Amino acid sequence: MTVSFSPIATVRSGYRDTSEIPKGPGAEHHAEGVIEVREDLAEGLADIEGFSHLYVLWVFDRQKEVRLTVTPPNDDRPHGVLATRAPVRPNPIGLTVVELLGREGCRLHVRGVDMLDGTPVLDIKPYLSNVPAERLKRGWLDAAEARRAGRPLPEP
Amino acid sequence: MTVSFSPIATVRSGYRDTSEIPKGPGAEHHAEGVIEVREDLAEGLADIEGFSHLYVLWVFDRQKEVRLTVTPPNDDRPHGVLATRAPVRPNPIGLTVVELLGREGCRLHVRGVDMLDGTPVLDIKPYLSNVPAERLKRGWLDAAEARRAGRPLPEP
Repeated sequence: MTVSFSPIATVRSGYRDTSEIPKGPGAEHHAEGVIEVREDLAEGLADIEGFSHLYVLWVFDRQKEVRLTVTPPNDDRPHGVLATRAPVRPNPIGLTVVELLGREGCRLHVRGVDMLDGTPVLDIKPYLSNVPAERLKRGWLDAAEARRAGRPLPEP
Repeated sequence: MTVSFSPIATVRSGYRDTSEIPKGPGAEHHAEGVIEVREDLAEGLADIEGFSHLYVLWVFDRQKEVRLTVTPPNDDRPHGVLATRAPVRPNPIGLTVVELLGREGCRLHVRGVDMLDGTPVLDIKPYLSNVPAERLKRGWLDAAEARRAGRPLPEP
């Protein structure tokens, strides 16, 4: 079974090469950019400007390799690719939470871009709610951060 | 331009019909289910059990209609489909945050399922961080909730 999609938008960012993008799950993304939504979908954006944050689902379109195990930039140990955000996943789909700064017609001005210029976007959704912080565990990522900081490892 | 994906997993849930699934962005989803990942991708799950919550990207595979404007179940006013979580979006991709209860080989036991039984899954990612609550605005959704509760409308 195969499912096919046509992109609904294109990312405009200052990033021309992946080496310019801060890497790893702890990386801070403050870069601003624009999501240019297709003109024929303009009506679908009505009222989006009321949301402070959006999910952007996009394609790692310049990424062809797939690996099942990766060693992330912020750890020295390998992990299953589905337990990371690495681009070399079976389906190269990226997910980014961006802050919506404003809208001009079909152009969404956003902060928090970590996509290359020209990246195709599959979907945009409002960000609605958080997982309660006291219930959030981040597995190997918390362990890697603790090791680097010389702190005790978190409880499993 | 078209991008194609092969599902990496299938959802097993108690939902056989969309009418059984709690609707609307404020709906509470406590249903448990299983995400059955393809056996050939087993290695890609290594260490995923350390995360309390996962993003699941999936396909509204029994949804063919596309609409640019929708009136959500929890409001009486229409909004652009990209400002909602409605399934009738240009690319019918769903995004659900589930709590990971445990893993048995390629089977992920999860809570918070809102997908039909048999739903194809495109990607699974660890949930890593929240948007700070004091910076989160939810546009028409906050307004609709305030109207229904008889509270003053939120500041735009």
